[in-house]
Amino acid sequence: MSKGAVRLEDPREVAAAWSALVEPGDRAAGRLRRELGDARALAWALGPGPRTLPDRVRVGPDGRELPWEVVWQRLRPRAEALDVARDLAELERLGGRLLVAGEAAWPPGLADLGLAEPAALWVCGHLGTDPTVAIVGSRSSTAYGNRVATEMALELAERGVRIVSGGAFGIDAAAHRGAVETGRTVAIMAGGLAHLYPSSHEQLFRAILQRGAIVSEVPPGWRPASWRFVERNRLIAALAQVCVVVEAGRRSGALATAHRAEALVRTVCAVPGPVTSAMSVGCHMLLRNNAMCVRGAPDVMELLGPMGQLGFEGEDVPVADPAGSLPPDQRRVWDALPTRAGVPLESVARVAGLGRSEVLAALTGLQLAGLVRLEAAGWARVRGRRP
Amino acid sequence: MSKGAVRLEDPREVAAAWSALVEPGDRAAGRLRRELGDARALAWALGPGPRTLPDRVRVGPDGRELPWEVVWQRLRPRAEALDVARDLAELERLGGRLLVAGEAAWPPGLADLGLAEPAALWVCGHLGTDPTVAIVGSRSSTAYGNRVATEMALELAERGVRIVSGGAFGIDAAAHRGAVETGRTVAIMAGGLAHLYPSSHEQLFRAILQRGAIVSEVPPGWRPASWRFVERNRLIAALAQVCVVVEAGRRSGALATAHRAEALVRTVCAVPGPVTSAMSVGCHMLLRNNAMCVRGAPDVMELLGPMGQLGFEGEDVPVADPAGSLPPDQRRVWDALPTRAGVPLESVARVAGLGRSEVLAALTGLQLAGLVRLEAAGWARVRGRRP
Repeated sequence: MSKGAVRLEDPREVAAAWSALVEPGDRAAGRLRRELGDARALAWALGPGPRTLPDRVRVGPDGRELPWEVVWQRLRPRAEALDVARDLAELERLGGRLLVAGEAAWPPGLADLGLAEPAALWVCGHLGTDPTVAIVGSRSSTAYGNRVATEMALELAERGVRIVSGGAFGIDAAAHRGAVETGRTVAIMAGGLAHLYPSSHEQLFRAILQRGAIVSEVPPGWRPASWRFVERNRLIAALAQVCVVVEAGRRSGALATAHRAEALVRTVCAVPGPVTSAMSVGCHMLLRNNAMCVRGAPDVMELLGPMGQLGFEGEDVPVADPAGSLPPDQRRVWDALPTRAGVPLESVARVAGLGRSEVLAALTGLQLAGLVRLEAAGWARVRGRRP
Repeated sequence: MSKGAVRLEDPREVAAAWSALVEPGDRAAGRLRRELGDARALAWALGPGPRTLPDRVRVGPDGRELPWEVVWQRLRPRAEALDVARDLAELERLGGRLLVAGEAAWPPGLADLGLAEPAALWVCGHLGTDPTVAIVGSRSSTAYGNRVATEMALELAERGVRIVSGGAFGIDAAAHRGAVETGRTVAIMAGGLAHLYPSSHEQLFRAILQRGAIVSEVPPGWRPASWRFVERNRLIAALAQVCVVVEAGRRSGALATAHRAEALVRTVCAVPGPVTSAMSVGCHMLLRNNAMCVRGAPDVMELLGPMGQLGFEGEDVPVADPAGSLPPDQRRVWDALPTRAGVPLESVARVAGLGRSEVLAALTGLQLAGLVRLEAAGWARVRGRRP
């Protein structure tokens, strides 16, 4: 029936077949694979008819219940065109390899996708196992956003973090560029590895491939399509522990990735920008919906847990009272002293609104700190010293 | 003992006396006034000695327990210099009036200050009773911050909101300037009304006085001192339902106001800015500590409750999936159709990864929406239409 028979005992061929049989994120197929196992499910899908399955089992993609018959019908057109040998040969020609769900090198985060977990990843390059941060954003980013994305990616990658993004124009490319020297960057494609998109990023993609990786969940020959971009976003979200949106317009696809990440219980972050910038509108929407405000790599490292505590100095505990480090009484007494001449204790007490004994205690403290001294005319600030 | 006797039966004179006896925010005096009532507490403070009070009552400013004797001693220097008649005469000369705590026109929010509630406000101009927003920020603000503060203040004031701020350089002045035409703006001074600070804002202060108000909690002749700036911030925080920080450096006094507002259970907001701007560092610190991200007047109006729902169109429910408004199957089928030529149903099914019946249902939906049509060669997108 299909152009090349699939060897059901070969998990690699089975996984490649599932990649080609269904669109990314097809939960009906996911349910079928979970119920029967990939190989048995494939045998049924490629078999003569749906009746060989008990009818009571049902699947529910998009909230709907589908009888197996509908699922079998859905797989039929692709089953007839299936050519796993051709797809795997093309992968080999590209120098890539197939990662099969569940094998040792399978990225653990993908299991969180549940029924939408892909059966395989088509990978060119070196995927790595570092802690991972997604940096995504608008295609039509500003110079500000590009700068923030590149610097953040560079500083994170230098500290051992892998950067995933979508390889697109704008923020995606800026993030890849920041991390590419370290090799810690992975571009997730919406189409197959033979159709890297956008083609004008050929040079960037070549640089990523040298030490990083380019990944797709569809066979090499497939073209990117808008549906596949939407589902590609779920891979970016699932692969990363933290998802950072650097710039996003009101309807940016980066917001979709952020929502996927939130649904996967990932930490969603947004970089603030000027409220006058259309490219920060989406980020500010996220910040108003409980995304974490991050200002750069140190803030992101912090979110990665213990590993993130390394490499940056802790720097900003909010200032409870920036008006000075003196205790209240000393502050009031300091304020009460004139800039130059010495004044008697009674005068200080009246101006400070404190009692004599309180003023004396405060003056003693200030004296110990080298801030005031007792002169002939009375108490005076020490010239050139400030609290 | 004092230069002019205080008539204890006149609440105005009693309140003016308390203003002059203590520094702003003195909680020991606040406890005393609460225990005895303002008039009786004043009689004791101006009296011959502390022994007339039972010793068991104690006060605890700054977490310390103070015996009455210490409080009496604290008030002594000021009691000896007290001249309420002079202070009230100066107020009259300035065209101002004294507001006494608890009277009908007393701003209700001030009661939240508890023991630190002032006994009186010295007011020039018209205070009003509108819902109130504090707009505060850095003295050394940027053009961006000034623009945001002025526009926000203007748009809020036009919709009936009163803007309070501190009259300082930078964001304070920008906010006052935005609201001053409407008259809905109040400047809170750290010094007395005869010492409006900074003096270079004389013209701005004159404009505020024409229809808005300038307010102080200390007698007119007092000078601003750093302690008084710190305590002035608590008045700004208490007077407003919402506190907006527009720009703030790492150690800006505006952060102190925000912390006061938070302690008073006010809504604290911050305007985001470029992460590359030192003047937005404080705002981003606040956003990382649960301040609300606001982008302009509409966001602030929303926080004012039912009254805030008026005047602005609701505009941004976050987009769940910006990739298109089509249901998933229709999206996949749309993607599967070539741009020009018509294709047979089987081809659409294979490319979309759906069964024939699913594709037919999706095509019917797309056809009803005027997006596709059946031509001689098969199904085709209608030229010029997009989902």
